[in-house]
Amino acid sequence: MIDCNEAIARLDWSREPQGLYAPIAYALSSGGKRLRMQLALTACRLVGGNEQDALPFAQAIEVFHNFTLLHDDVMDRADVRRGMPTVHVKWNDNTAILSGDQMLIEAYHLLEGVPQQHLPLLLKLFTRTATEICEGQQYDVDFEQRQDVQIADYIEMIRLKTSVLLAAALKGGAIIGGGSEKQQQALYNFGIHLGLAFQIQDDLLDCFGDPQTFGKAIGGDISCNKKTYLLLTALDNADNDQRAELRGWLAHTMASTQKIEAMKQLFVATGARSAAEHAIAEHTQQALQCLLTLPDNEHRRLLEQLAHKLAQRQK
Amino acid sequence: MIDCNEAIARLDWSREPQGLYAPIAYALSSGGKRLRMQLALTACRLVGGNEQDALPFAQAIEVFHNFTLLHDDVMDRADVRRGMPTVHVKWNDNTAILSGDQMLIEAYHLLEGVPQQHLPLLLKLFTRTATEICEGQQYDVDFEQRQDVQIADYIEMIRLKTSVLLAAALKGGAIIGGGSEKQQQALYNFGIHLGLAFQIQDDLLDCFGDPQTFGKAIGGDISCNKKTYLLLTALDNADNDQRAELRGWLAHTMASTQKIEAMKQLFVATGARSAAEHAIAEHTQQALQCLLTLPDNEHRRLLEQLAHKLAQRQK
Repeated sequence: MIDCNEAIARLDWSREPQGLYAPIAYALSSGGKRLRMQLALTACRLVGGNEQDALPFAQAIEVFHNFTLLHDDVMDRADVRRGMPTVHVKWNDNTAILSGDQMLIEAYHLLEGVPQQHLPLLLKLFTRTATEICEGQQYDVDFEQRQDVQIADYIEMIRLKTSVLLAAALKGGAIIGGGSEKQQQALYNFGIHLGLAFQIQDDLLDCFGDPQTFGKAIGGDISCNKKTYLLLTALDNADNDQRAELRGWLAHTMASTQKIEAMKQLFVATGARSAAEHAIAEHTQQALQCLLTLPDNEHRRLLEQLAHKLAQRQK
Repeated sequence: MIDCNEAIARLDWSREPQGLYAPIAYALSSGGKRLRMQLALTACRLVGGNEQDALPFAQAIEVFHNFTLLHDDVMDRADVRRGMPTVHVKWNDNTAILSGDQMLIEAYHLLEGVPQQHLPLLLKLFTRTATEICEGQQYDVDFEQRQDVQIADYIEMIRLKTSVLLAAALKGGAIIGGGSEKQQQALYNFGIHLGLAFQIQDDLLDCFGDPQTFGKAIGGDISCNKKTYLLLTALDNADNDQRAELRGWLAHTMASTQKIEAMKQLFVATGARSAAEHAIAEHTQQALQCLLTLPDNEHRRLLEQLAHKLAQRQK
């Protein structure tokens, strides 16, 4: 089986100009789960394909994902990623912009290596997905200013920002593995629900996670009034008193442990926390449902385990 | 014949989220010469093809070019482009980054529309060219800090930053038009020399242009000590006194008309100005030479006229 971290480390960034390529090597060196790459390779094997055929596509997806992180970190002014200074901190904003652009181009360069008969379809899938992710990022930015965001808007935003890349990784792997259109679509849908469960779990952990295991400070979303699944549900479910209390804390723009604690209690009292837990369980179930028509092999069981693990993860 | 401005204006950016797409529409609305698009269409016709077949490729090249301008303007903190506020001024840096990313993705989206038998080759050409342009931009940045830049380094930098896109536009048009590999290569080489002549002419106009016709302030490159063809040649050609004088002015980091005038005189006295004029004439001749093996038709004459016009342009 392909070792994803090793396959990413094998990409060569030693060429000139190093001012362009060293930040790319750095951004790709910090590890991470390589989840999207794993999904592409697993989907290929699941439908009976040879995972080596899916490697360039899987690498393209992984490089693309890390490109989005690089540019997102500039836009969010995030200083740390996976315990390391971000590229715009270690170098500067211009480097992060230009090396990020080059990473996106490198992702397309890797796509040149896909089995040629699948190139047109994979190119379309890749580009449509990249577009959706930019749209999701823009909606996320827009939501900061909007006061009328509904839960359905939020779900659509995280579908675009998070789910479609997992889904496209799986579908692309299935295409390369010779899966039927039905299988491709089933895996795509599995990825969509997996992504939604993953993102709502992320919202939950940011608020109710164990600071020891979560790895970052708890309550970051609360401090910046981020319109998460929890906050939007709390605002929806709140009675008049609770809504007034929520609005009061939202007007507190200073970060404080007092605000974090009060909001957490409101998320519990309004039922937002249990709604989020329910939504995660629901999307995990729907994800597993998508797998039922697929070959019942060890690769499918890997995806099933992954869905269970993501729903229960503590970090 | 296809009207390039009209063909770019026809691209539809009215979809949501407008926060992502309105800046793209804006960046593409300010006109410009659409030179790269013209080159692609002309090359297609020149080798006997139907220019309609080359339209998606030509649009992809033009959208890509405007993506590079958008991100370059952020990195250079340029406030105005073609008489209009730049995207990061009219909106903000984050918008310029994200909408720029999306423009690059849109360029690849347009590539999906090329004649399918040429897709693998055009995709490779496009991606290699995009990589070279990022490398050229990085070299340009690196040169600001380096004190050992040679004229050959500078030529290589502008080949990457400016020439390869003109060359790729021409070669792609020739591929789509059914031109032979020799014809494709001849047109590519024409583009390389055209780009070099164009860029050195740009250096010359920035320094010796007529402020009335040039459209921007004269001496911008001198004020920021930009290592242009003129400055590098002047440093190469200078005698000891002239070199001391050049170094003295380079140490003046304050912009002043006195510095601009003194440097201009040194560029004349060291022969840098005439060397630049000679280099432009030389690359224009070499460009024209590349055309000699191609069909002697009206489209070739259009390229010949273009080469003459660029060499003599005053803005």
